[in-house]
Amino acid sequence: MARIVANTHNQGNDVVVVVSAQGDTTDDLIAKAAEITHDASSREMDQLLATGEQISIALLAMALNAIGCHAISLTGWQAGFHTDRAYTKARIRRVDTERIESELERNRVVVVAGFQGLNKLDDLTTLGRGGSDTSAVAIAAALHADRCQIFTDVEGVYTADPRKVPNARKLDEITFDEMLELASLGAQVLNNRSVELAKKYNVELEVLSSLNPIPGTVVKEVTNDMEGMLIKGVAKDTDVSVISLQDVPDVPGMSFKIFGLLAQKNINVDIILQSTGRNGNKDVIFTCAQGDAELAARTLRELGHYSHVQVDNSCAKVSIVGAGMQSHSGVASSMFEALSNNDINIKMISTSEIKISVIIEKKDADLAVRAIHDMLVHGA
Amino acid sequence: MARIVANTHNQGNDVVVVVSAQGDTTDDLIAKAAEITHDASSREMDQLLATGEQISIALLAMALNAIGCHAISLTGWQAGFHTDRAYTKARIRRVDTERIESELERNRVVVVAGFQGLNKLDDLTTLGRGGSDTSAVAIAAALHADRCQIFTDVEGVYTADPRKVPNARKLDEITFDEMLELASLGAQVLNNRSVELAKKYNVELEVLSSLNPIPGTVVKEVTNDMEGMLIKGVAKDTDVSVISLQDVPDVPGMSFKIFGLLAQKNINVDIILQSTGRNGNKDVIFTCAQGDAELAARTLRELGHYSHVQVDNSCAKVSIVGAGMQSHSGVASSMFEALSNNDINIKMISTSEIKISVIIEKKDADLAVRAIHDMLVHGA
Repeated sequence: MARIVANTHNQGNDVVVVVSAQGDTTDDLIAKAAEITHDASSREMDQLLATGEQISIALLAMALNAIGCHAISLTGWQAGFHTDRAYTKARIRRVDTERIESELERNRVVVVAGFQGLNKLDDLTTLGRGGSDTSAVAIAAALHADRCQIFTDVEGVYTADPRKVPNARKLDEITFDEMLELASLGAQVLNNRSVELAKKYNVELEVLSSLNPIPGTVVKEVTNDMEGMLIKGVAKDTDVSVISLQDVPDVPGMSFKIFGLLAQKNINVDIILQSTGRNGNKDVIFTCAQGDAELAARTLRELGHYSHVQVDNSCAKVSIVGAGMQSHSGVASSMFEALSNNDINIKMISTSEIKISVIIEKKDADLAVRAIHDMLVHGA
Repeated sequence: MARIVANTHNQGNDVVVVVSAQGDTTDDLIAKAAEITHDASSREMDQLLATGEQISIALLAMALNAIGCHAISLTGWQAGFHTDRAYTKARIRRVDTERIESELERNRVVVVAGFQGLNKLDDLTTLGRGGSDTSAVAIAAALHADRCQIFTDVEGVYTADPRKVPNARKLDEITFDEMLELASLGAQVLNNRSVELAKKYNVELEVLSSLNPIPGTVVKEVTNDMEGMLIKGVAKDTDVSVISLQDVPDVPGMSFKIFGLLAQKNINVDIILQSTGRNGNKDVIFTCAQGDAELAARTLRELGHYSHVQVDNSCAKVSIVGAGMQSHSGVASSMFEALSNNDINIKMISTSEIKISVIIEKKDADLAVRAIHDMLVHGA
């Protein structure tokens, strides 16, 4: 990483690097806490975990200095990260860039600890999932940086999972909205939180490999491929539970009652289908993450209006994403054709402006991705 | 440690605990840096090493909370430690106790990271040798604490090294000055820096064992033992080089020239002896730490006034310490008698108000300590 950073700096760029903890450091620290208690306060966990990134910044700054690239490390609070009070899942309130800018003016590379900040009590906080990427985007936004490069172990964003779909292609560009849909579908290159922040402040991202120095995928507001690809990716998500409620009274307010209750329990509902009424009753079907399914079913059974609440964990969601599809009516039918050609039964369908998702049997998911990719991306 | 702290708190005390890094943590961090470079900047080393204590405070606070003792951890800078700029060997400028006091008012035990602070640049600094003890004394001074307890792996301060002198006794009390002399003689229970600070701010210390919950040794300005022990301890120091300069011109200013030069090179000289002049020349003999001997000899040879500069590393210093000895003329002669009885030759003698030191052959040092201890401490 030091060589990549030094090269970027030597090309005449001001460089701020945001790093995470090394390898197993965070897991090792969590294990140390678990030796003492399984009920540690979130404040003390943050105090503990923040050391992981602090070790990384010092070591990277040393490595940069060792190869003649002047560098200085800053912890999250030294770099000006102010967050709300929510330990272990803090949200960034603002980044005071005074210190970073003064170090950049001295022509130093600034190495910043990601994933962490300071709250109003002067206590350390950590940002939770996707933390370091989010830190990087926040600094890029605050500094009005030309670009925010996210180095990972893949070479960019692909039209499908390259391990499963041999002819998957790396994308040159993708829009923020497309990236958000792809990330939520399990293409875990970038955490959604960092993409949302990049979209909000219009920070151009580049996802690229730290192992292979070739251009990656640029994520931005509007992409340039005027005659380019309609479909940016095909993704599957196997963390899906389908929950069916049968014979729900067909009266006003029932949907609000059902989904309001689930929202109170912090259960994120994804696709919702509702049958037309029959004998004064209707069927309601929805999907959620498998980890929430039991709580959702128990909550709805306690509501007591329905004889049958069924949970089905044998399903998967397969989706296509592309900003152009809203103006191309043939996309959905091509997708259904690809599935039909392979005798794959569609259980549910959901569409948005830039996404079409189907719920199918989990066992068919990989075949479905390949078939759709062949018809809509590779063959296009 | 959590149980000791909780007990102290449960007895109705406000408690601030200062901790160091666990076991090998600091060495592991130094090794990580050495994998990258052997020339790390001291600023980045401090950024790295400060994580060791931060891990300890979080874990101890968790352990205290787990046994029902409300605790909060504070890093050095959260606890208000302001230092000068000298990375890796910073000196404490002041401790702003506002945060500590507000946490104590909430009846929390405050767990503070020792060994570290913040300088004017908002950079982390570490205090160097004896750091955590010094941090503890500084907080005790700033809070006007009733007592500062230093937990170690020994039960207190002994009249001699218990591993070498079977009838060595643990002292109930000792004065700051006596402790300073003993520490500098190699009885490494407390670092001198923390004792000096305790003396300056009159902070009563207690040295005691974390493994065996019995009263330790209290270190204070004036001890109460009115009819008590004349000699507080017998100690040896084997890190001694004796450097001899022969035929030094016996002219005014020579001593200043010699020892001024050594001071410029940061060489601490301990005992100095000077013979009377003979043929316009004199002999000058002094001792210093063995690590400084080569530099001292080289420096003096370059001065060029003397034909012979000899370094002798075969010696040891054995000393007795006791605030009462200045008014008891028989102490020195008893010490010399003990050595004479065992055929131990004395090469140099140095005396201060509370200490008598002799330089003898290193091979005789353990026998000398036992013999002096038997005559002046055990037999007294």
